[in-house]
Amino acid sequence: MPELRKDPISGRWVIISIERGKRPSDFGMRVSAKKGGFCAFCEGNEHTTPPEILALRPGKNGPNTSGWTLRVVSNKFPALNIEGELNREGDGIFDKMNGVGAHEVVVEHPDHNLTLSTVPLKSVENVLKAFHARIEDLKKDKRLKYVLVFKNEGDDAGASLEHTHSQLIALPIVPDLVREEIDQAKQYYNYKERCIFCDIIRQESANKARVISENEDFISLAPFAPRAPFETHILPKRHESSYMPNGNFNFLAQILQRTLKQIDKVLNLPPYNMMIHTSPFKNEENDYYHWHIEILPKLTKIAGFEWGSGFYINPTPPEEAAKFMREAEI
Amino acid sequence: MPELRKDPISGRWVIISIERGKRPSDFGMRVSAKKGGFCAFCEGNEHTTPPEILALRPGKNGPNTSGWTLRVVSNKFPALNIEGELNREGDGIFDKMNGVGAHEVVVEHPDHNLTLSTVPLKSVENVLKAFHARIEDLKKDKRLKYVLVFKNEGDDAGASLEHTHSQLIALPIVPDLVREEIDQAKQYYNYKERCIFCDIIRQESANKARVISENEDFISLAPFAPRAPFETHILPKRHESSYMPNGNFNFLAQILQRTLKQIDKVLNLPPYNMMIHTSPFKNEENDYYHWHIEILPKLTKIAGFEWGSGFYINPTPPEEAAKFMREAEI
Repeated sequence: MPELRKDPISGRWVIISIERGKRPSDFGMRVSAKKGGFCAFCEGNEHTTPPEILALRPGKNGPNTSGWTLRVVSNKFPALNIEGELNREGDGIFDKMNGVGAHEVVVEHPDHNLTLSTVPLKSVENVLKAFHARIEDLKKDKRLKYVLVFKNEGDDAGASLEHTHSQLIALPIVPDLVREEIDQAKQYYNYKERCIFCDIIRQESANKARVISENEDFISLAPFAPRAPFETHILPKRHESSYMPNGNFNFLAQILQRTLKQIDKVLNLPPYNMMIHTSPFKNEENDYYHWHIEILPKLTKIAGFEWGSGFYINPTPPEEAAKFMREAEI
Repeated sequence: MPELRKDPISGRWVIISIERGKRPSDFGMRVSAKKGGFCAFCEGNEHTTPPEILALRPGKNGPNTSGWTLRVVSNKFPALNIEGELNREGDGIFDKMNGVGAHEVVVEHPDHNLTLSTVPLKSVENVLKAFHARIEDLKKDKRLKYVLVFKNEGDDAGASLEHTHSQLIALPIVPDLVREEIDQAKQYYNYKERCIFCDIIRQESANKARVISENEDFISLAPFAPRAPFETHILPKRHESSYMPNGNFNFLAQILQRTLKQIDKVLNLPPYNMMIHTSPFKNEENDYYHWHIEILPKLTKIAGFEWGSGFYINPTPPEEAAKFMREAEI
């Protein structure tokens, strides 16, 4: 009998195939090998991207030249424009506003052939610090309400460039999925006076079946009601509402890279999406919401049932996925 | 400047690229040619599927033999099981229930090489009637609250079998996306005492820019805030809360097949998903919700931004998509 499970944070239901769970080898999709060719993110091609917003340069080279270990640039084809007025307006029954926002790219390492799971650990830490620095800067723009940090790895996960990179999109509204999580977390807090994420971490730590790994500050786990096989979340073990006040980037880099290595090992370098969920600028410090990272390997296709219902069908129980991840020899 | 548009029914925001809109030829994905080989849905292989639930047999052949024009069978690998108790239960902070429900397949035509856009019009009508008959039957099961009808065309849209077919999944809960639409529609009705869909049809009919086609009973249009390029909705022009009381299946078959032919012509046989949204069993007749068909050509990939935000980035303004569709020579 399949199981219907409800994610207590998003309120989303998923269908978990319990008996005939798909094993890692049952999934056919793989990251296509990197093809090479001209790459705007490679060293020597700095002049082909928009100018640097931020860069780490151990040497003394000037901006927009070689000699960097990390670069942040504006997206050449931004989803939103940083210039302009917000201008909310109606159109009869409809509502719209100008697409004001920012869209930036974090080039994570100069080497075209590495990924976030194979770059030096220090580079992962630098990437995580760059996210923080850019959020802090974008926050000053009063038109903006939220920054979504995300990463697409592999063509099937929507990456249009193969050189390892992440992205930030700053938005003039709090995105639906974040707002829904916050609303649910607030309701729980109003009722229990405890953070729902803290309660989940407590229950999962005691139960162990869905815990993948942990270090001093962070825990990685397979959520109870995952949308996709091998979905993995990383959360700070102590309550933190926003990314990330305590600055223990090294511990976060460790668990993130460990998780990505486990995913690569178990699923043979799958395409994946990674997202950071954090509190909106307006209420950065609060007792009800708990920032976290979500990683979604791209192993199944979104089809009519998902598009029509908002339900997901997940052929791998998270307890099995967590076991595979824990036992991966990395 | 891109435009942020809000869908008034789902409350979902989308980012529409206004200036650099993608034209049909800019999308690379295509339905892969049918490969043939053994097919359980072809005539002569009736014994390889679960037994028929419903079939149209112009001749006198018995069930589960050849000579049919349409067959409905249970899905051999169902997402939900029809047998069993519902059993809602908690697991600490989490909630789950048995995956009770039904999962059926409508084999739309015996010919392996046709699609819903190329079968005879009478077959489209039969498919639409079969949806209705199956919903009416499943409704009698008191454990069930909703039937989602959907279709995946092409491998990239999640179709695992290439023989033209649709599916029904009957659920013990009303799916999130339907509930959200109903909640918004109710709010609108409480405020205005009018159906929001009827108001949208009225505004779109007057404005014309997003209308694709219409006949006596139905209208097809590109929604104001579409999740995907060339998303198309078909709605009854007069208020109808559920699929579908008036029984004018012929008019619906006409506009549905016309729309699918337009999509095939403009986008060169793209993969697509199709879903029917209707009122839940409990409140089938009401003044606030309006059943409709949603068709989503699969031309872009869902990436980290969409997974993390619930926003969609749509590179083709619906006004342009509607124009291409209207002008398609079919």
